[in-house]
Amino acid sequence: MSERNIRVEPIDRQAVEDQEVEIVERKGIGHPDSICDGVAESVAGALAREYIDRVGEALHFNTDETQLVAGEAAPAFGGGEVVDPIYLLIVGRATKRYDGQTIPAETIALRAAREYLEETIPQLEFGEEIVVDVKLGEGSGDLQEVFGEDGEGSDADGPVGVPMANDTSFGVGHAPLTETERIVHDAESRLNGEFAAENPYLGPDVKIMGKREGDEIDVTVAAAMIDEYIADLDAYAEAVESVREFVAEVASEHTDRDVDVHVNTADDYEDGSIYLTVTGTSAEQGDDGSVGRGNRANGLITPNRSMSMEATSGKNPVNHIGKIYNLLSTEIAEAVVSEVDGIRDLRVRLLSQIGRPIDQPHVADVHVVTVDGVDLADVEDEIEAIVDRELADVTGITRRVIDGELSTF
Amino acid sequence: MSERNIRVEPIDRQAVEDQEVEIVERKGIGHPDSICDGVAESVAGALAREYIDRVGEALHFNTDETQLVAGEAAPAFGGGEVVDPIYLLIVGRATKRYDGQTIPAETIALRAAREYLEETIPQLEFGEEIVVDVKLGEGSGDLQEVFGEDGEGSDADGPVGVPMANDTSFGVGHAPLTETERIVHDAESRLNGEFAAENPYLGPDVKIMGKREGDEIDVTVAAAMIDEYIADLDAYAEAVESVREFVAEVASEHTDRDVDVHVNTADDYEDGSIYLTVTGTSAEQGDDGSVGRGNRANGLITPNRSMSMEATSGKNPVNHIGKIYNLLSTEIAEAVVSEVDGIRDLRVRLLSQIGRPIDQPHVADVHVVTVDGVDLADVEDEIEAIVDRELADVTGITRRVIDGELSTF
Amino acid sequence: MSERNIRVEPIDRQAVEDQEVEIVERKGIGHPDSICDGVAESVAGALAREYIDRVGEALHFNTDETQLVAGEAAPAFGGGEVVDPIYLLIVGRATKRYDGQTIPAETIALRAAREYLEETIPQLEFGEEIVVDVKLGEGSGDLQEVFGEDGEGSDADGPVGVPMANDTSFGVGHAPLTETERIVHDAESRLNGEFAAENPYLGPDVKIMGKREGDEIDVTVAAAMIDEYIADLDAYAEAVESVREFVAEVASEHTDRDVDVHVNTADDYEDGSIYLTVTGTSAEQGDDGSVGRGNRANGLITPNRSMSMEATSGKNPVNHIGKIYNLLSTEIAEAVVSEVDGIRDLRVRLLSQIGRPIDQPHVADVHVVTVDGVDLADVEDEIEAIVDRELADVTGITRRVIDGELSTF
Amino acid sequence: MSERNIRVEPIDRQAVEDQEVEIVERKGIGHPDSICDGVAESVAGALAREYIDRVGEALHFNTDETQLVAGEAAPAFGGGEVVDPIYLLIVGRATKRYDGQTIPAETIALRAAREYLEETIPQLEFGEEIVVDVKLGEGSGDLQEVFGEDGEGSDADGPVGVPMANDTSFGVGHAPLTETERIVHDAESRLNGEFAAENPYLGPDVKIMGKREGDEIDVTVAAAMIDEYIADLDAYAEAVESVREFVAEVASEHTDRDVDVHVNTADDYEDGSIYLTVTGTSAEQGDDGSVGRGNRANGLITPNRSMSMEATSGKNPVNHIGKIYNLLSTEIAEAVVSEVDGIRDLRVRLLSQIGRPIDQPHVADVHVVTVDGVDLADVEDEIEAIVDRELADVTGITRRVIDGELSTF
Repeated sequence: MSERNIRVEPIDRQAVEDQEVEIVERKGIGHPDSICDGVAESVAGALAREYIDRVGEALHFNTDETQLVAGEAAPAFGGGEVVDPIYLLIVGRATKRYDGQTIPAETIALRAAREYLEETIPQLEFGEEIVVDVKLGEGSGDLQEVFGEDGEGSDADGPVGVPMANDTSFGVGHAPLTETERIVHDAESRLNGEFAAENPYLGPDVKIMGKREGDEIDVTVAAAMIDEYIADLDAYAEAVESVREFVAEVASEHTDRDVDVHVNTADDYEDGSIYLTVTGTSAEQGDDGSVGRGNRANGLITPNRSMSMEATSGKNPVNHIGKIYNLLSTEIAEAVVSEVDGIRDLRVRLLSQIGRPIDQPHVADVHVVTVDGVDLADVEDEIEAIVDRELADVTGITRRVIDGELSTF
Repeated sequence: MSERNIRVEPIDRQAVEDQEVEIVERKGIGHPDSICDGVAESVAGALAREYIDRVGEALHFNTDETQLVAGEAAPAFGGGEVVDPIYLLIVGRATKRYDGQTIPAETIALRAAREYLEETIPQLEFGEEIVVDVKLGEGSGDLQEVFGEDGEGSDADGPVGVPMANDTSFGVGHAPLTETERIVHDAESRLNGEFAAENPYLGPDVKIMGKREGDEIDVTVAAAMIDEYIADLDAYAEAVESVREFVAEVASEHTDRDVDVHVNTADDYEDGSIYLTVTGTSAEQGDDGSVGRGNRANGLITPNRSMSMEATSGKNPVNHIGKIYNLLSTEIAEAVVSEVDGIRDLRVRLLSQIGRPIDQPHVADVHVVTVDGVDLADVEDEIEAIVDRELADVTGITRRVIDGELSTF
Repeated sequence: MSERNIRVEPIDRQAVEDQEVEIVERKGIGHPDSICDGVAESVAGALAREYIDRVGEALHFNTDETQLVAGEAAPAFGGGEVVDPIYLLIVGRATKRYDGQTIPAETIALRAAREYLEETIPQLEFGEEIVVDVKLGEGSGDLQEVFGEDGEGSDADGPVGVPMANDTSFGVGHAPLTETERIVHDAESRLNGEFAAENPYLGPDVKIMGKREGDEIDVTVAAAMIDEYIADLDAYAEAVESVREFVAEVASEHTDRDVDVHVNTADDYEDGSIYLTVTGTSAEQGDDGSVGRGNRANGLITPNRSMSMEATSGKNPVNHIGKIYNLLSTEIAEAVVSEVDGIRDLRVRLLSQIGRPIDQPHVADVHVVTVDGVDLADVEDEIEAIVDRELADVTGITRRVIDGELSTF
Repeated sequence: MSERNIRVEPIDRQAVEDQEVEIVERKGIGHPDSICDGVAESVAGALAREYIDRVGEALHFNTDETQLVAGEAAPAFGGGEVVDPIYLLIVGRATKRYDGQTIPAETIALRAAREYLEETIPQLEFGEEIVVDVKLGEGSGDLQEVFGEDGEGSDADGPVGVPMANDTSFGVGHAPLTETERIVHDAESRLNGEFAAENPYLGPDVKIMGKREGDEIDVTVAAAMIDEYIADLDAYAEAVESVREFVAEVASEHTDRDVDVHVNTADDYEDGSIYLTVTGTSAEQGDDGSVGRGNRANGLITPNRSMSMEATSGKNPVNHIGKIYNLLSTEIAEAVVSEVDGIRDLRVRLLSQIGRPIDQPHVADVHVVTVDGVDLADVEDEIEAIVDRELADVTGITRRVIDGELSTF
């Protein structure tokens, strides 16, 4: 056994699936907060890849602060227009000079943002309906050293190649997802995937809230419709109904409980107050956004579970411990659940200590609810071994984030 | 009894005080995230008061998105300088025209920010070391109506004067605070209060993390020292030691457990790498900030407890339900604990439903851990009555926020 | 004869062509100041056309204040990169609400700027190497009225349809151009036209200064070369030589005087200090720009002649009298010279009076140098008739500006 | 005699004082364009002094591009308010790192702007009614060398200590001022001096246009009144009349010609359309501004005279030849006129050559109109000697600019 400080314990609560009331939320990729998360993370990935290409390693950066200032729009059946453009400010730190080279960090950031926006919110005309600006300063003096020569652990402290934690921080992960969680997550993904592909009237700003009381699940969807593809109020009503049916169908794949789906409940057809947009995102009309205000690293907001306040998106995946531990703890939780039988609910928490190698957390505690008939003692060693193995491979998280394989929001 | 949907249940976990590991964090008022929270909230308060003065009611606004872009500084013993100014962008929505009047929302916002910054971070020269800019758009079409004629509940739905919820959202509050929580919160408050008053070398950017394992508490303080008042490395070391002693003293007032206090542990005196600043905040050197990324509404970050992702600061206190319910649930929790004997831990959650009067949450659930020898049944009615009473007075929260009596971070 | 206050007088100086020393300058379309002029004017044209399309008339606007903040670049033979993007801020006034309609003035402005930049400086990647932002306020209270109901002359004051002057201002025009002026103007146009079409290494930032002392003309060209098309220093030297030969050839078409052409004289090949750029404009590297700082309305800077300080580009062509009179006086001067024989040099000045119909200037004075053997008295009436005719058609200037047929810089 | 290329010749026109029509304009210190000139110049002075203090010489900088975006105001008798703040962006180049030192160029710039604005437009609340932002890049690669080791002339080229010209540029100066010019200049200075000191209702945004036709002079004043000090329309009318009387009195000190003074002629009392402001500048309400768009280096706009397009304000006074030669040529003209009798009008033009010591212009030509009875030949040598002497002392201009002793607008 390694000397990692791993603890496996019973959790002191019911499995979330068994709690009486459960609330789950997901902000879709076109929600203003998610736009900021997505831009921040795509900028981070682009910077990391470019640094590695140019100098062989990911230099210091941290771009976890994108601010979106909403625009103003005048949607209209058949196609309206953005009246005042959205303003998006990419904020952060990046290394711009290294070893005699200049690195065009701001140009890289702008390009990444542009490509991300054009792919994610295609209806939004870059540079006309959204202005993207950037302010990347040089890094913080205090923390830069951790990235420098001391950025890699010495033999005494751990294996060469494992960076030191840059902060005292923690991450938390959960598995398995509850039915309600899976419904909420899957519905958004598939609405923005297969559904939108066939029904271009659906914009990417889809916000879903799931609420379960006992065995009754309410799924409330706020879906921004794109005016160009909606001819009139009847068409709008049909679009809303299609979304409702689709989400109900998705839900039925995940649960046998009763599910009620509500779409755009704030609409008032008589007042002509409906959720119609030009671009498919409420950022066009008064909804500001910023990084870290929406989904947690597992794509959900889950008040029934411990959540980290950490804004994962945009952070440097090499040594930003809050980011790494949030992603890693989720990976660990999923690995345990898929490999070990008899687990009903599981929470992994990783707490770092500034200056220690990141594969050696200050504490890794795993809290478990077993299914009836399974004793924690029966699976404890197995769990610990998986945690140990995953911690040893912590740098794999970094690699996959850089390659854009892991979602952070 | 009212018809409010109040549930009182046992909590399905141990009291946090009794859990094996506990982590608590507080970002002091000078931390970049807290600066944003504070500016956003002071802007909101100023707007609300000005609206009431001018038109008799708090018009639509929401200023919960302040972005801070860090500067660059060159601190030096005896006094260095800010090399690149901090940039702070106040973002949000506000009503600028009402009933034939123009309301100078941006001027009001700038003034509030200026006054707040000058009071909170006096070492920071406004307009020279920090540039404050503002972008306040007009409100979102979708939600403005809730503020309009329909903004007050009809007789059928509830008492006149109670606004409707503007969103489906929830708030969560806890009481009593654990020893570790009290130590962390109190240490920051008193460092920035009585200690700083006597020791001007301590900047307002104090970040405190408390960790308890069993009966051992570690308190780690990162305290920005102000260079003007630190003559040399010896003076710095003395300052650090004074902070350590002060915090140890504060801790001893809250606990009999063993407490270890660590201050500025990342310092390396040989490298000359210490936490010295010109202005007393790390915002001067590479640490960006934004609203809602730091402390929750009760002033703490508590991974052992349910937390709301809601950015409370800057939101409109009249009908922004996420703000109101986070503050109210904390108030309720504190009221219950102070009035009812035998409660060891208590969590209050309030879930709104969009369009319903805010004094009638969709559900108000109270989870309780009683002390040994007390049965929940014994106190259930008493608790419910307090919850009911506090909900009935929900608009009191609004009033106190507007008057600046409640802290949001 | 009309009652317009037209005066034709002898000029109290020699024809510029006959003066001993003459200096002429033209900043090419890719010069930072010209970029600002061009963006401002294209925004103005787009707004005017859009207003006319939507509401039938050009509403109030004035976009004559574009500010360019230079970037930083790292050019390299074969292709370098922009390290810090250029920032361009479109500033001005525009009507955003009219008669119940919203008009997306900022979106229109951004689109016009984008299209203009992509056409004029194709090497510059919009949104990556240049950030374009916009701040268009509503109009000035004081002057808006002139555009309102009183915007058209009443019967008493002049023909319906002729706007009132919005200011006391003046315009000045000259004809014919001297040889040196024609060389400078033509060389830039053709370098950025036929030459660049065949030689993609030449960027649009071409600045030409012509100096004539007696019969010796020196033409000094600063030509930004585009690194992607320049393989090495030899290629650069060849490019410079090609430009020199081309300009010498152009010059020989306009004069029999001796002409010396100098290209990129500040180069120092040994130091490796040459005029190599990534994008073809010095805006990429430290040269800021703004509207009205470069060429006058006739495309030249001519210290030997009276010049108006007026920033013509970006102004509203309907009633901005400084713009109209600068363009019109040039038109008049050219018309007179092309229709009347015997004129060696001619200057037209138009002075407006605020509140008067713009076809009735306070004074229109024409100063003439006739060729030997021609008496001013012989041509005076003819000149006056042309001036009168052109003034009567003043709104034709407006129309042609809106249609993009007249250059303003 | 020196080897400077000085030419003294008769001017080929009448003295301006003797021309039939003369137009003169001055934008007062509170005009939006002048605000930009003033801020740019005060920033330049502060940078130059700070560089000299810190490193012994004025490092590279150029801050000649300030952009003002107008605000929106709601003036009211007795005191209104600024509704949308003015935005002012300081743009330019500055050295931020030199010889291991960091130099807080942006902080210096912001401080200089603040102090300048608080002194010049005291009614304007800094940071509330005006947001001042700054973007100072590092210098242009091409030109930085001239400032470097080669920045001082070698023995071969000229006296040690005389910088090389950084550009091919020219300056032009005139003397003596005509009566109309003196009236316009003096009236603005004294309105903003002694008059405003006694009559706080007069704002600093005073714009004066003088027009002389033969012996009739019209002086048109647009004077921004400050609402706090104007109780009602009667008080406004009185204020206007006081300004009129004061200007008439000033005029009478400079001329025996007939003078008509008009103040705020665009007012329409019946419509309530008057020139009332909150802050004393039209920048509060729709009038944008930028550097170099207003007064020339001698404080006037004089279409009857040659003018340089050069934006003098904000440029580096050490080697920015356009700035130096505009100021120097004016100094020379004034020196000649004060020392030599018999000159009715005189124009000095200085043309630089890039790379040559600035005390050796490519050509310095002086065009003179003598009074009746004086022959140019009689004074030619005297004039040339003065020009030679003043050129030799060219660095005195730099020194006086740095010390803030010379006005640039």
